[in-house]
Amino acid sequence: MKGARLIYLPLGGAGEVGMNAYVYGYGPEGRERLILVDCGVSFGDMASTPGVELILPDLTWLAERASRIEAIFITHAHEDHIGALPWLWPRLKAPVHARRFTAHIGRLKFEEAGLPREAIQVVEARPATVVAGPFRVGFLPVAHSLPESAALVIDTPAGRVLHTADFKLDPSPVIGDPWDPAAWAAVAGEIAPARVRAMVCDSTNVLVEHPGRSETAIAPAIAALVASREGLVVATTFASNVARLKTLAEAAAASGRAVCLLGRAMKRMVQAATETGLLAGFPPTVTPEEAAAMPRHRLMLLATGSQGERRAAVAQFARGRYLGLSLAEGDLVLFSSKTIPGNERDVLRLVNAFSEMGVDVVDEQAGAYHISGHANRPDLATVQDLVRPAMVIPMHGEHRHLRAHARMAQGRGFASEIVANGMMAEIAGEAPEIVEYIEAGRLYLDGSVLVGAADGVMRDRIRMALNGVVLVTIIIDEDGAPLGEAWVETLGLPGRGRGGGPLAEALEAELARVLERAGRGTLADDDKLDEAMRRVVRQVAMEEIGKKPEVTVVVSRLMAE
Amino acid sequence: MKGARLIYLPLGGAGEVGMNAYVYGYGPEGRERLILVDCGVSFGDMASTPGVELILPDLTWLAERASRIEAIFITHAHEDHIGALPWLWPRLKAPVHARRFTAHIGRLKFEEAGLPREAIQVVEARPATVVAGPFRVGFLPVAHSLPESAALVIDTPAGRVLHTADFKLDPSPVIGDPWDPAAWAAVAGEIAPARVRAMVCDSTNVLVEHPGRSETAIAPAIAALVASREGLVVATTFASNVARLKTLAEAAAASGRAVCLLGRAMKRMVQAATETGLLAGFPPTVTPEEAAAMPRHRLMLLATGSQGERRAAVAQFARGRYLGLSLAEGDLVLFSSKTIPGNERDVLRLVNAFSEMGVDVVDEQAGAYHISGHANRPDLATVQDLVRPAMVIPMHGEHRHLRAHARMAQGRGFASEIVANGMMAEIAGEAPEIVEYIEAGRLYLDGSVLVGAADGVMRDRIRMALNGVVLVTIIIDEDGAPLGEAWVETLGLPGRGRGGGPLAEALEAELARVLERAGRGTLADDDKLDEAMRRVVRQVAMEEIGKKPEVTVVVSRLMAE
Repeated sequence: MKGARLIYLPLGGAGEVGMNAYVYGYGPEGRERLILVDCGVSFGDMASTPGVELILPDLTWLAERASRIEAIFITHAHEDHIGALPWLWPRLKAPVHARRFTAHIGRLKFEEAGLPREAIQVVEARPATVVAGPFRVGFLPVAHSLPESAALVIDTPAGRVLHTADFKLDPSPVIGDPWDPAAWAAVAGEIAPARVRAMVCDSTNVLVEHPGRSETAIAPAIAALVASREGLVVATTFASNVARLKTLAEAAAASGRAVCLLGRAMKRMVQAATETGLLAGFPPTVTPEEAAAMPRHRLMLLATGSQGERRAAVAQFARGRYLGLSLAEGDLVLFSSKTIPGNERDVLRLVNAFSEMGVDVVDEQAGAYHISGHANRPDLATVQDLVRPAMVIPMHGEHRHLRAHARMAQGRGFASEIVANGMMAEIAGEAPEIVEYIEAGRLYLDGSVLVGAADGVMRDRIRMALNGVVLVTIIIDEDGAPLGEAWVETLGLPGRGRGGGPLAEALEAELARVLERAGRGTLADDDKLDEAMRRVVRQVAMEEIGKKPEVTVVVSRLMAE
Repeated sequence: MKGARLIYLPLGGAGEVGMNAYVYGYGPEGRERLILVDCGVSFGDMASTPGVELILPDLTWLAERASRIEAIFITHAHEDHIGALPWLWPRLKAPVHARRFTAHIGRLKFEEAGLPREAIQVVEARPATVVAGPFRVGFLPVAHSLPESAALVIDTPAGRVLHTADFKLDPSPVIGDPWDPAAWAAVAGEIAPARVRAMVCDSTNVLVEHPGRSETAIAPAIAALVASREGLVVATTFASNVARLKTLAEAAAASGRAVCLLGRAMKRMVQAATETGLLAGFPPTVTPEEAAAMPRHRLMLLATGSQGERRAAVAQFARGRYLGLSLAEGDLVLFSSKTIPGNERDVLRLVNAFSEMGVDVVDEQAGAYHISGHANRPDLATVQDLVRPAMVIPMHGEHRHLRAHARMAQGRGFASEIVANGMMAEIAGEAPEIVEYIEAGRLYLDGSVLVGAADGVMRDRIRMALNGVVLVTIIIDEDGAPLGEAWVETLGLPGRGRGGGPLAEALEAELARVLERAGRGTLADDDKLDEAMRRVVRQVAMEEIGKKPEVTVVVSRLMAE
C-alpha cells in the first residue's frame, strides 16, 4: 500500500515487568488498522500505591481509535498478559483470539465480569492463522511457565514480525509445548530470501548470564527433598505454573503423600488445566477436611502465596491455622518459586514466623527447586541466530533490561533500539525508527474504580501515611464571628507533643489565639481563613512533634434566617 | 556470691538485623547489677512504618532499673549499634565506654543532642579493662566494615562471656584491626582450664555457606573497572565503610581521577576517620565546584545513597542535578554495596532512571565489588573452635538466622538455644536456661517524638493509606435538630464513584436521608449519631467505589444562649 507504514507501539510492558500491552498498526499514517497484543496487569504495593489491587496500562490512545482495532491477541494466561482484559475490553470491543487454555481462563474472567464469553475465540497453533484486516497472525507454541504460551507470527504487507511473548528454551517442560528450534527456524526459513523484519522479544532475563535449564531437571531434587522429610510438607509456587504443580504432586505421590490443594487460584488453575486436557496424570487430591485427619508424613499441601501475599494460604499458616490445618515443629515449607523484587520483606516475614514455630523453610536455593519461565541471555542469542531478523526490539522488561537487550543485540550485529512505553516505532525498514511519542500512563484499580495514576489519589494517601492528618472545624456565626472555638481532630499522629500535653489541645489553643487576632476580612473569606489556620497548625505541629501534617479545614457558616 | 545469677537479656537485635541492645546482669535475682551492650536503631519503611525516621528498642525494662546500670558499652559506630544512644541515654544516664573512633562518633551525636560529651569515655583495647560493678570488660579488636569494631570480653564472678559484636575474619581489612586468631584463642586460653561460659555471637551471615573474603581482595577488580571507564565514575557504599572509601579513592588515584565526596554522612565519616588518625594516605579531595570544572574522565564522585535513599546524593543524580553536577551517557555508577532486603525496589528505581540517561550501573556482582563485614557460616565455625565456649548464643539476626546458628552450633557439639528479644537467659551453667520473659517492644522516632509501636499511630496511618479518609461534619442546633446538611470531605479517594457523580455528593445525599429519618434519641447522642453516619458512609462508599474508607465524624452542637 502506497504511503502505508508498519508501526509498533508499546503501551505497557516496555518499561516494567508486568502490564504487557503492545499495539501494532499497518496503513497510511493516522489511519493504520490496529491490533493489540496482550492486555495485562501488574500489582500495587504499599510503598507507592497503597490500597491499589491492580495496575493497568492506560489504553486511552487505543480506545480513542477503537474503530480501527481489528483484533486483540492474548499470548498466554498469565495475569500480566491477560489480567486487564476484563477491565479494558469494554472500551475496545474487538474480537479476542487465544489458544485453548488461555481462552478458557479468559472466558472465566469474562463470565465473572458479565462480559460475553464468545468475544474470546479459540485459535489453533500454526499453521492456522487469524486474518485481522491487513494482519495475518499465527500462534507459534513456546515453552513457558504455564501451558500453551505462544509467540505470534504477524504477517503484514510490509513484512513479517515475530512477537515472542514470554518464552524459555525448554525441551522438556513437563506440561505444554517443548522448545522446537525447527519451528522457530521455519518462521524465518519459510519466507526466505525475505527476512523477518522485526523480532520483538522478551527481555526479563537478559541479565542472567547462564543458559536456562529444563523444568524436568529439578524434579529429582524436589522428589529427594520431599522424601527426606518426616513431617508435613507445604509447597508453594505460582498457581499458574501447572507443570511445577505436577512435579510437586508427583514428588508427593512418590513418597506416599496425598496432595491437598489450598487457595482459590490453585484449585482454579488445576481445574482449568484438567478441563482443557493438559493435566493428565495429576494425582488425585484430598480435601482439607480429609487432610486434617491424615498423618502429617502422608501429606503435601500445595498452597498459594509464594510472594508472601497476606491473604494467601501460606501467610495464613504463618499466622496460625488455615481451613483446620496448621504447621508444627519439623514441618517443611518449600518455596518452589522466585521472590519478585519488592516482595522480599513480605516473604522473609513469613520465613521468620515459620522459624519461630520450628518449621523449616527451603527456598529456590539458586535454582535447585525452581527454574524461570524466561529465556536467559544465551537463550536470546540462540533465537536471534535462528530467526536472523532485520531488527531486534527488546520487549517486556524494565528499562535496564531493554537497554541491556538492545546492546547485546547490537553487539551481535542486529539493528536494535529501545522502544519504551509510549514510543511509536516504524519497523518496516532496516532499523526501528521512532516516529511519535504517545502519552502512556497507568490506571489503578482501587476498590472497584479505575483511577488515573496522575489523579493525585495515591499522592494524597502517601502524604497522609507519612505526615498524619489534622482536621480543623470552625463555625462562623451570622455576624461573621467565630462561634465557640476551633475543634481539632488528629489522625495517625502521636497523642502528645514535646510540651507534654495533648497535641490536639496545643493546636486548639494556638488556633484560638489566631482567631482572636483575625480581622473581619480574614474571617469573611474562606480561603484566607483556611490558609491562616492551616499555617498555624503546621507551625505548632512542627514545634510539638517535629513534623508538618496534612491539614483539612472545614468552615461552617451559619446563615441569618 | 551466693544465690547470684548471670543473665543475658536481648532487648533488640535478637530477632532483626539492626537495633542491637543486649543486657547482661550479675547478682541475686531481681537485684542484678546491669550493663548494656550497644544501643542501636533500625530504619522504618513506607510499608510498615510510614513517616518513621528511626526504630529504637524499647528499653523501658532497663530504664525502670536505671539505678542498677553500671555502664553502657558500644562495640562500634554503626547506627544499628550506637544510633539510639542519644535518644535513650537520658533515661539510663550510665557512663558509656567505647574505643576511640566509636567514642568520637558518639560524642558528635551527643553534642548535637545537647548531651554531655564527657559521658562517653575512650577505652583502649585489651589488655585494658573497664570495671563496672561485678563486671570487668575488655575490648577485643575485630575486623568489620568500619574502623575499630570490638568484641567484648566480659568477666564476672560466674565466669567469662565473649560478646562478639559484628565481626568478620579479614586478615587485611585495609583500615582497622585485622583478624587475629591468636587473640581470640587467648580469650579462652588465658582462663584455662576454666572455659568461656558463653560466646554470644553475630548471626547475620550464618546462611552464607562460603568463607568470607578480605577487603583487600576486591581492590584489583575495582581498580580495573575504574580504569576501564572513559566517563565520570560515581561510586557509592555505606559512608561508614571507610576502608571501602579508601579502596575506591585509591582506584581513582591510580587512574588519574580526583575524588569528590558527596553527601553529609560521607564527609562526616571521612573527617572523623581522619581526625582519629585512621585514614592516613587518603588522597586529597576536590570540592563539588572544582569537580564541575574538571574533565569527566578525571573524576570520581564518592556519594551517599547505596540503598536508594530518596534524599541521598545518588538518588538526586537519578532525578537530575546535585550540587551543580549531573550524569550523562557513558558515565558509570558503581554500587560497591549490598542491597538490604526491602530496599530492592528503591535501588532498582535508580538503576532504571540511570538506564534512561544512558548511564551504566554496576552492582556488587556476586562479590566482585563488595564483601560483607560479617562472618559467614564457616567463619563462625572457626571462632567456635578457637574459643570452645560452654555455650553458643546466637545474637544479631532475624529469627531464621538465630535458629540456623543455634542448629549449626548444636550440630558441632556446643550447647545452644535461641534467645530472642525479651527472653532472659541464665548463662552461668552448661547451657542457656530461659528464666524470664520481658515485654520487649519498639519505639518509633516520628518527627521529634518517640511513639510506642503498640500505640496504634502506624496502624491508623496504614489504614488511611489503604482505605482513604472520609470526613463528615454536622451541626446540631439548640433544639437538637440538624442545622443544614452534613458536609463531606474525602481525602485520598477517587473523586467519582460508579454512579458517575462526585463521591462526596453521593455520600451527602445518603447522609441527608439518614438524618431525616433519625429520631431525637440518635440526634441527641453523639456516639449513636457518629455510629449511624459512619455506617452509612461506609455502605455508600462500598457501593460507589468498592472500598470502606476510614471515617471521622465531627458533630458540633450549638448551645442555647
